[in-house]
Amino acid sequence: MSHTMPDWIAADWGTTHLRLWAMRGHEVLERRATDQGMGKLSPADFGAVLETAVEGWGAAPVVTCGMVGSRQGWFEAPYAPVPCAAAPRLVRVPDHEARPVYIACGVRQDSPPDVMRGEETQIAGLLLREPDFNGTVCLPGTHTKWVGLRDGKIMRFQSCMTGEIFDLLSRQSVLRHSLGGAGDDLAAFEAACSDAYANPALAYGALFGLRAGALLGDLDANAATARLSGLLIGWELAATHEIWSGGSVALIGSPVLSPLYKRALALCGISATVHDAEDVTLAGLYAAQQTIGDQT
Amino acid sequence: MSHTMPDWIAADWGTTHLRLWAMRGHEVLERRATDQGMGKLSPADFGAVLETAVEGWGAAPVVTCGMVGSRQGWFEAPYAPVPCAAAPRLVRVPDHEARPVYIACGVRQDSPPDVMRGEETQIAGLLLREPDFNGTVCLPGTHTKWVGLRDGKIMRFQSCMTGEIFDLLSRQSVLRHSLGGAGDDLAAFEAACSDAYANPALAYGALFGLRAGALLGDLDANAATARLSGLLIGWELAATHEIWSGGSVALIGSPVLSPLYKRALALCGISATVHDAEDVTLAGLYAAQQTIGDQT
Repeated sequence: MSHTMPDWIAADWGTTHLRLWAMRGHEVLERRATDQGMGKLSPADFGAVLETAVEGWGAAPVVTCGMVGSRQGWFEAPYAPVPCAAAPRLVRVPDHEARPVYIACGVRQDSPPDVMRGEETQIAGLLLREPDFNGTVCLPGTHTKWVGLRDGKIMRFQSCMTGEIFDLLSRQSVLRHSLGGAGDDLAAFEAACSDAYANPALAYGALFGLRAGALLGDLDANAATARLSGLLIGWELAATHEIWSGGSVALIGSPVLSPLYKRALALCGISATVHDAEDVTLAGLYAAQQTIGDQT
Repeated sequence: MSHTMPDWIAADWGTTHLRLWAMRGHEVLERRATDQGMGKLSPADFGAVLETAVEGWGAAPVVTCGMVGSRQGWFEAPYAPVPCAAAPRLVRVPDHEARPVYIACGVRQDSPPDVMRGEETQIAGLLLREPDFNGTVCLPGTHTKWVGLRDGKIMRFQSCMTGEIFDLLSRQSVLRHSLGGAGDDLAAFEAACSDAYANPALAYGALFGLRAGALLGDLDANAATARLSGLLIGWELAATHEIWSGGSVALIGSPVLSPLYKRALALCGISATVHDAEDVTLAGLYAAQQTIGDQT
């Protein structure tokens, strides 16, 4: 076993999942994932859950990011206010004897109010790969973030609840009766996205139109799903236009969401680059791990 | 008992409730309400549920409106296409031996696609009271309707999912942690409503701001609830502007919602009249009952 013993452990501990990587420098020795997200745990459980999850990996320090550092998490890591360097800032969890555990600090914006936890680490990872990146990073997800970067600094950002709203409307609203399939009707997606971007006010009324269109027989479930996705992303593009319209856009997200956002941005004349979320998370945690000497 | 025997029975049978009135002409002899909405029932149950609910009221005919006439209801009553007279149209439920039961037909619009069931009866009731009303009727609720009327005809309409979206966001999204109280902070409601109406694109981003504002300590739960309500209604006003901006507006809704919409419209320079939902429902069902001779 000793040949795979990590010299540090990377962790992404969110509301629904705990993802772990045994690391030697940049190199991933082993991956683990559980559904023991912090949403299910009480503060007293975090230490024991972590120790069970890293069993067999020795006493290496852990560097973690995500909602684990929120008020409902293990230990509240403070937010850095914007504008701030897009570089890792760690705090050490007190009272955990088994090993050093560090949590990445989130970022706050006071006006308009906004917060992020976890995305700042992915952005630090992107900048480790592309130190000269200036422009906008879009991180699609439950609460998609749009982040303006300049000269290695996070200047401002905007969160949109697109992922969560899509989920609520498609699973729990009256629209659930009219949606279905993979939602991969790209023509329907693009038409709805363009409509909502051009006229976000009217798009609000188009939501019930997905139900009515199905009742009146003109809209199939797959097209309706694609339209809902297009309406929400088009709206989001209108809401964040000021942030992304100036320059290049880098997308960090899942293989499902990133292509949709890339396509939506292309409709607005923006060519976005796509980055693998795990890659930049690990790069960001690596950059954070490099700073440990400074804190301890 | 015979002195309270109705000559007809009015019913509003929606997804969540069944409301019944024993009527003699215009006069309400007795009211009943149960939570046996059609959402819980299968088509085979409707007849028995109705007979139990009207026990003691003799064999009077029933005139009902609402989702009972939908595809998932007792018997699918066809939709009348707009433009159409804002007058009751009834179909008789087949195969119910105990008494004649009539269901009011809904209204459809093909482009943009939209449907209503129940609201058309309230509109007919409003016109019975005010035959010369020309303008817009707004019926706030789970799926708020905005209906353009001219010379006794429904010209077009627009549904907005404001009630349902408010409910999903406030009970089931991440915002639930930051909302609370009665949401009666009128200054917060009005500010959010004006913001969203003036710039519906930016308002989309303001949703997550309700969570972030609470986390950063600047927004209390009552104000956040009022802001959410204001954002959604402001958005809805932007989406329906073309329908209501031309003339007078009549509100038909609950004592909670109508004052909010009246206030929101006042911010846009529109003075709306408020009508009691039960009053106009009964007036509409009365007008419908008067037509029974024509159908049977």
